[in-house]
Amino acid sequence: MGKVTCQISISLDGLVAGPNQSLENPIGEGGMRLHDWVFATSSWRRQQGEGGGEDGADSAILDEVMQGVAYIMGRNMFGGGSGSWNEEWKGWWGDDPPYHAPVFVLTHHPRQPLPMLGGTTFAFVTDGIESALEQAHAAAGDQDVAIAGGASAIRQYLAAGSIDELYLHIVPVILGAGERLLDDVGDPVLEPVKVIASPTVTHIRYRIAKRAKS
Amino acid sequence: MGKVTCQISISLDGLVAGPNQSLENPIGEGGMRLHDWVFATSSWRRQQGEGGGEDGADSAILDEVMQGVAYIMGRNMFGGGSGSWNEEWKGWWGDDPPYHAPVFVLTHHPRQPLPMLGGTTFAFVTDGIESALEQAHAAAGDQDVAIAGGASAIRQYLAAGSIDELYLHIVPVILGAGERLLDDVGDPVLEPVKVIASPTVTHIRYRIAKRAKS
Repeated sequence: MGKVTCQISISLDGLVAGPNQSLENPIGEGGMRLHDWVFATSSWRRQQGEGGGEDGADSAILDEVMQGVAYIMGRNMFGGGSGSWNEEWKGWWGDDPPYHAPVFVLTHHPRQPLPMLGGTTFAFVTDGIESALEQAHAAAGDQDVAIAGGASAIRQYLAAGSIDELYLHIVPVILGAGERLLDDVGDPVLEPVKVIASPTVTHIRYRIAKRAKS
Repeated sequence: MGKVTCQISISLDGLVAGPNQSLENPIGEGGMRLHDWVFATSSWRRQQGEGGGEDGADSAILDEVMQGVAYIMGRNMFGGGSGSWNEEWKGWWGDDPPYHAPVFVLTHHPRQPLPMLGGTTFAFVTDGIESALEQAHAAAGDQDVAIAGGASAIRQYLAAGSIDELYLHIVPVILGAGERLLDDVGDPVLEPVKVIASPTVTHIRYRIAKRAKS
């Protein structure tokens, strides 16, 4: 069975979204500043079918983290509002989402699987985070499962002790208010196993020690 | 005139002290975990007049950051409770504090300067953070002034735009609650200029862009 990984951009004050998140602006005010480093890379531009952008550490990291073979995502990250599904909503990413793999979406509302172009299929899981993790492991075989986000899904899997590697991209901005990644996640034992410093972002990969099953 | 620097250990969730800080336990519950890396170093043990401890990146960094020529410190970090001074209180550090330099203590209550062994003199400044900074610059000449802490003093100088370099020792623990370093400090422009990864702690030195004086 593969590892469970998670990577996310975080502000120096521990926030992964700015204040006043809304349906129209799910990343909150100023939250997009956490992702500026992504948009500058050649990796990102290539994924959008464009040329240009910067090579270097940030670009190499983005290539690396987008090679998952199964993803799990919270409903807010998939979007489309709460409650019963509007079947017109097919995520934020257009016809060919950047996952190219099965994506298990955590929800309380059933919905048929949604195959997209490029190998992405959104599957909707209504029986909890453990079930989603089992299904993702089954899809990934001996390769890794990635928790794609958002913050609430990551917090739930951290609190459950399910995440083996947390890869934080520490962006040197102070948002001041917004959504905290690491509230109410217990006291996991973390070890920094790889640190990559680019001129703009510090990427730290933490290994999380497995807890004994209680 | 030298730079204004600040270095401090911070948890992965942005805290510099644990919950339930008190006169007896100013670092709060679990807060001492932020400093375990210090106590393990040969530099620390040498400063205590002891042998042993670990050489390596953490020890070299501790040597480097303790070479200030003038320090500024908040009253809570100096200790002894609030209100008028109990003249018996001479700080937490014994007769020979580790500063070996003038230390300007921010307080609302006047007190005569307190010379200690080893070159440390505590001087008590009652007319505000700008005055303390001027006095520290005068003492340091063209060398750097260090804001020693605690969190409240650092926040005030960050919010005032006075700090040129913020050196964070990011400790991979999640305290969950306690005192946040980066609340209410405005939106400084930070640039990571040096990153040193030890097996336990990630040390990131940020340069803070000078703001135009308004």
